[in-house]
Amino acid sequence: MSAEIVPLRPRASEPSLAPMLAVTAPGMNAVNSVILDRMQSQIPLIPVLAGHLISGGGKRMRPMLTIAGAELCGYQGTRHHKLAAAVEFIHTATLLHDDVVDGSDLRRGKATANIVYGNPATVLVGDFLFSRAFELMVEDGSLKVLKILSHASAVIAEGEVDQLTAQRHIETSEERYLSIIGAKTAALFAAATRIAAVVAEKNEAEERALEDYGRNLGIAFQLVDDAIDYDSEASESGKGKGDDFRDGKMTLPVILAYARGDAEERRFWQDAIAGFSNSDEDLAHAVELINRHDTVSATRERARHFAQRAIDAIAGFPAGEARNAMAEAAEFAVSRRY
Amino acid sequence: MSAEIVPLRPRASEPSLAPMLAVTAPGMNAVNSVILDRMQSQIPLIPVLAGHLISGGGKRMRPMLTIAGAELCGYQGTRHHKLAAAVEFIHTATLLHDDVVDGSDLRRGKATANIVYGNPATVLVGDFLFSRAFELMVEDGSLKVLKILSHASAVIAEGEVDQLTAQRHIETSEERYLSIIGAKTAALFAAATRIAAVVAEKNEAEERALEDYGRNLGIAFQLVDDAIDYDSEASESGKGKGDDFRDGKMTLPVILAYARGDAEERRFWQDAIAGFSNSDEDLAHAVELINRHDTVSATRERARHFAQRAIDAIAGFPAGEARNAMAEAAEFAVSRRY
Repeated sequence: MSAEIVPLRPRASEPSLAPMLAVTAPGMNAVNSVILDRMQSQIPLIPVLAGHLISGGGKRMRPMLTIAGAELCGYQGTRHHKLAAAVEFIHTATLLHDDVVDGSDLRRGKATANIVYGNPATVLVGDFLFSRAFELMVEDGSLKVLKILSHASAVIAEGEVDQLTAQRHIETSEERYLSIIGAKTAALFAAATRIAAVVAEKNEAEERALEDYGRNLGIAFQLVDDAIDYDSEASESGKGKGDDFRDGKMTLPVILAYARGDAEERRFWQDAIAGFSNSDEDLAHAVELINRHDTVSATRERARHFAQRAIDAIAGFPAGEARNAMAEAAEFAVSRRY
Repeated sequence: MSAEIVPLRPRASEPSLAPMLAVTAPGMNAVNSVILDRMQSQIPLIPVLAGHLISGGGKRMRPMLTIAGAELCGYQGTRHHKLAAAVEFIHTATLLHDDVVDGSDLRRGKATANIVYGNPATVLVGDFLFSRAFELMVEDGSLKVLKILSHASAVIAEGEVDQLTAQRHIETSEERYLSIIGAKTAALFAAATRIAAVVAEKNEAEERALEDYGRNLGIAFQLVDDAIDYDSEASESGKGKGDDFRDGKMTLPVILAYARGDAEERRFWQDAIAGFSNSDEDLAHAVELINRHDTVSATRERARHFAQRAIDAIAGFPAGEARNAMAEAAEFAVSRRY
């Protein structure tokens, strides 16, 4: 965790991640040890480059979900520590590759690995972490977990390619967008929570409930990520603000602004998404149009829907700290401004 | 297989891959079906891009080794078909990422995927194939195979990063070079043959023997690959000739030419490998120096040593078509000119 990101507010005012952090703290200490231990290699550049991203802050949401899910299931063992580390390695590998794919220069408020160490090393260290994730899973030895996470990895890659195909295509629909973020983001959230039920040896319905929580939370999370990129009230996000706009990514705030816009506004969006007008002034105009049609709020409203589904998905589990923390994390996913 | 590459010569004159192709033909048909079937995706760009490389010729050496190894072990089942396809997917993923890393524009005599479809899609489809490889292994269900191949994948990535670190460093030793090719190439050859013994439920010594065959063959194979890049007598290789020279890769023909060269020659190599002199004339001069010190032949001689170790590693298996074919494949690895 980077230091600044968790304002401890009383629940009444605004949902926070604090209960989730509290519930998962002991588990996450163990997970962080595994991460630090297993990103090592006799090739010095590997831990240096991996550490650049891994030690660079970030919420570690995905491994935290595995830990929280195990808590919710009353699991007493330690198998989930390695598996949560594997989940974070898969996530880190995709971030490294994403930054190469997008040519990003800023993530979590610092220069990206591809800028500091170059694209070649960044691609290869991503491959290393991905392989290492599978080694960790194999050490655990559950074929069920391996199946869930190898499938999720393939789905993530499909989602990323699909996103690439949709990029700079103004006619991307909300349905297609939901399908993309369901794959590129929510699949790993879903897998991360589901495997908690697997190690806790819960039944199929409980596995599915945790998976549904993770999937819906992941969709809410990505929706808000995409809203923040155009939210004039949000604090500086870790990534460069307006990156999505300049990359011509069809995210929901744009899809809705385009749908709700008049003919002139649509022409602007066509040119902007095609990459013909993406100066700072164009970005300012885009934010103006998005404010005019209130599509950041609309995107957050959509996120609220999925967050509620996440909360309801785990209603069958025993009430208690873990369930409360997971529910509040879903509310936090909607209201967060960073 | 591309059509032109297997001259069917009588054994007496020159070793060929023909016996290997004959022994593995039925198995490779099954493997090719799995490959074609499992590279599909509902995202159309994925099979298109994957197919560009997969259908583009190539010897399919690694899956062939799994099939030949299973034959050598007298294995009668079909489990190795999926696993051999997984091996080829891992290999294909690394080739796609390699071409991005090296900025290559030619492989197997045609434009690389990164040139045709761009770096972003090429990285992501590599990730997809890698994930798909693990899905195939999980379907097979052997944790032992999963362990062997996930470890090999991590070692490959380490070898690639190590190679990147050594690039443009004239002081790279033969030992370091052997360690790099042992990781980036031979690890997958070794794993591909070893898993044949695993599915055939052979004992540990037999597993190791097949692994040793694969590792030594892989080293021989890579040595000759690196020799061909400077071999004025070799036919045009699939990749662009002189690529290693222009990339400043420290391969054995250069390492030996530098070691055997006089002060003036060493200055040339220093400038060339550092990237200050790598014009076509410089390449011609490099080939001249390599011929002067006979380091293409020396590299082939090193390869012969490893090929012999490969042949001797499987001496304990029953004599027969499979063993003969594998032995001749090792001789072929040394003598091949493409």
